[in-house]
Amino acid sequence: MEEIERKFLLDAPPSVVEGRPSTRILQGYIAITEDTEVRVRARGDDRLLTAKGGRGMVRREVTVPLTAEQFDGMWPLTEGRRVTKRRWVIADGDIEFEIDVFDGDLDGLVIVEIEFPTPETSGAFTPPDWCGPEVTDDERYRNAALATEGPPDRTR
Amino acid sequence: MEEIERKFLLDAPPSVVEGRPSTRILQGYIAITEDTEVRVRARGDDRLLTAKGGRGMVRREVTVPLTAEQFDGMWPLTEGRRVTKRRWVIADGDIEFEIDVFDGDLDGLVIVEIEFPTPETSGAFTPPDWCGPEVTDDERYRNAALATEGPPDRTR
Repeated sequence: MEEIERKFLLDAPPSVVEGRPSTRILQGYIAITEDTEVRVRARGDDRLLTAKGGRGMVRREVTVPLTAEQFDGMWPLTEGRRVTKRRWVIADGDIEFEIDVFDGDLDGLVIVEIEFPTPETSGAFTPPDWCGPEVTDDERYRNAALATEGPPDRTR
Repeated sequence: MEEIERKFLLDAPPSVVEGRPSTRILQGYIAITEDTEVRVRARGDDRLLTAKGGRGMVRREVTVPLTAEQFDGMWPLTEGRRVTKRRWVIADGDIEFEIDVFDGDLDGLVIVEIEFPTPETSGAFTPPDWCGPEVTDDERYRNAALATEGPPDRTR
């Protein structure tokens, strides 16, 4: 099933997250090259390594579970190429809000990703008033870009 | 214990390997960057991923076992950055010969690595007459260099 997502900037964590459970997410890139990337990710108690890449038709992505010790050993190799944040997931009917409050080098950045079950739901959606500008198609807000380039200049 | 190794080129697989058991070794680099590298390796039935890197005093290396399926999924990401070979290990008293017969892009290359228990044994060692020129300190014969640069020009 295709995932339909839209992404909006927020000025601050919205009041809907108050008192709700959240998950700490650490994501770091060990290597980013012209045709491959290798990243590690910790989400709650899960630790994963993902290698992805390839050209044209033969793109591929392989994920391997890591022990906490393996993750801790690799994390220093991601220095300067990290995204760290806390995530709240809030369901509203069949729409899901993922609210990411970044810290570290991206401190101050808050993004909501909204997942829709169908294109119709996405098209009919009116953002709540706590949503700022939409950045769905802005490449600067992809994880690898945030990790290596830092917070985008919102005036551009 | 420090490992003492010397490395020599051979013109062809020496007759001492005939009829002896050998192990197939595949090593490929998913990514090589200025400060990190990630490689996968298959040796007999073992499959491993190694991430290494860091700067100055904080160099580190972390190895994770892979399933055959994970290795097979990642191997295509190493295209153009591979070392494939067959290895014979032959003990002669307390000295061990590792004879590597390369194939693929390095077809024709044969290298023996000789491991010594002590610096004295290494210093007193006279290479057998089937050993060619010594390349112990030649950076072009390191795995990452062979994988990315191909077979060195022996006339230089």
